[in-house]
Amino acid sequence: MNKLQIVKPEDIEKRSMEIITSELNGRTWPEPQFSIIKRCIHTSADFEYADNLCFSKGAAEIGIKALRNGASIVTDTEMAAAGINKKKMEEYGGKIYCFMRDADVAEESVKRGCTRATVCMEKGADIRGEVIFAVGNAPTALVRLYELIQIGLKPTLIIGAPVGFVNVVEAKELIMETNIPYIVPKGRKGGSNIAATICNAMLYYKG
Amino acid sequence: MNKLQIVKPEDIEKRSMEIITSELNGRTWPEPQFSIIKRCIHTSADFEYADNLCFSKGAAEIGIKALRNGASIVTDTEMAAAGINKKKMEEYGGKIYCFMRDADVAEESVKRGCTRATVCMEKGADIRGEVIFAVGNAPTALVRLYELIQIGLKPTLIIGAPVGFVNVVEAKELIMETNIPYIVPKGRKGGSNIAATICNAMLYYKG
Repeated sequence: MNKLQIVKPEDIEKRSMEIITSELNGRTWPEPQFSIIKRCIHTSADFEYADNLCFSKGAAEIGIKALRNGASIVTDTEMAAAGINKKKMEEYGGKIYCFMRDADVAEESVKRGCTRATVCMEKGADIRGEVIFAVGNAPTALVRLYELIQIGLKPTLIIGAPVGFVNVVEAKELIMETNIPYIVPKGRKGGSNIAATICNAMLYYKG
Repeated sequence: MNKLQIVKPEDIEKRSMEIITSELNGRTWPEPQFSIIKRCIHTSADFEYADNLCFSKGAAEIGIKALRNGASIVTDTEMAAAGINKKKMEEYGGKIYCFMRDADVAEESVKRGCTRATVCMEKGADIRGEVIFAVGNAPTALVRLYELIQIGLKPTLIIGAPVGFVNVVEAKELIMETNIPYIVPKGRKGGSNIAATICNAMLYYKG
């Protein structure tokens, strides 16, 4: 047991961030991007996020401002919805939506032969006010968002972080071709944990 | 849009598993470990899980059998709880417990100056019948489990998958020193997604 460091619960995150900063060997990014990058590494212990996270110009600032103004978050995974800090969202007046388990979504997706995530994004597109889409699972969610953007949808920000092997890379690239603000871990990596973490990094940001 | 492969929703997972198997370049493991390894890679797009996942002898078989017999799962993260397949668990008669948001857990952890995860594991230790602990966040949860095992706790299986930089490596090693069956991604990596995925891989396993 004596190999364990004695660190108070409230100091663990601080100490972790110091280790991450130190292992980045002096690499640094402007804020608030740097905070988001560090939190993605903190959540995954994967330093690849230092290289793969792409931000459109001002995307992080736009997301932070929108969340403080009570923007909603729509996500394609229950895990991401569970991971986003509800207390902070409530404080700012924002809501978190995930429609993946809705009966009408299941029904519609079977009828149309599409994924449930596709239908979820359509439901999300009907939400009024500022909306951040945080995609942590399905590339088809990003493809549907791309199509909706072509016909006029203007989400505040897209966090495009599906993970996987089929159409993930391509779907992320589609989103990066639009003029909608985005935060995207390029390549195959991402996931519900990363989508939630990016939201939380913006919610926690002080500055 | 024409870079996207046309894959039916129901075929995406199958195609992903084929890609993973192919990129493992002929590396293979006995089942059911192989299914668990592939699903961890599927969830993270991180092939490091092929190298870091450690199974005590028969651990995967023990977990699968226990789940089929209605074992409970106790986890230290709401995200993992949200990610574990509820339908499958219900089918087998098992329950998923996460006590992290319980008021008494918060109160007790403040009083004792420990993490909420520590108190959660103690609550989990009181559950009757077969219990699988799926730790996806807090190394302190593993440390508390280790201590409880020293005084007689005998969980069916420990999925030791916290992620991070402070005491994570050491806490995993502690669990691997016990005689309790374990599945552990050695090193810093892990997370709620990995803890949930290991549970799901066991729930989905056919064989």
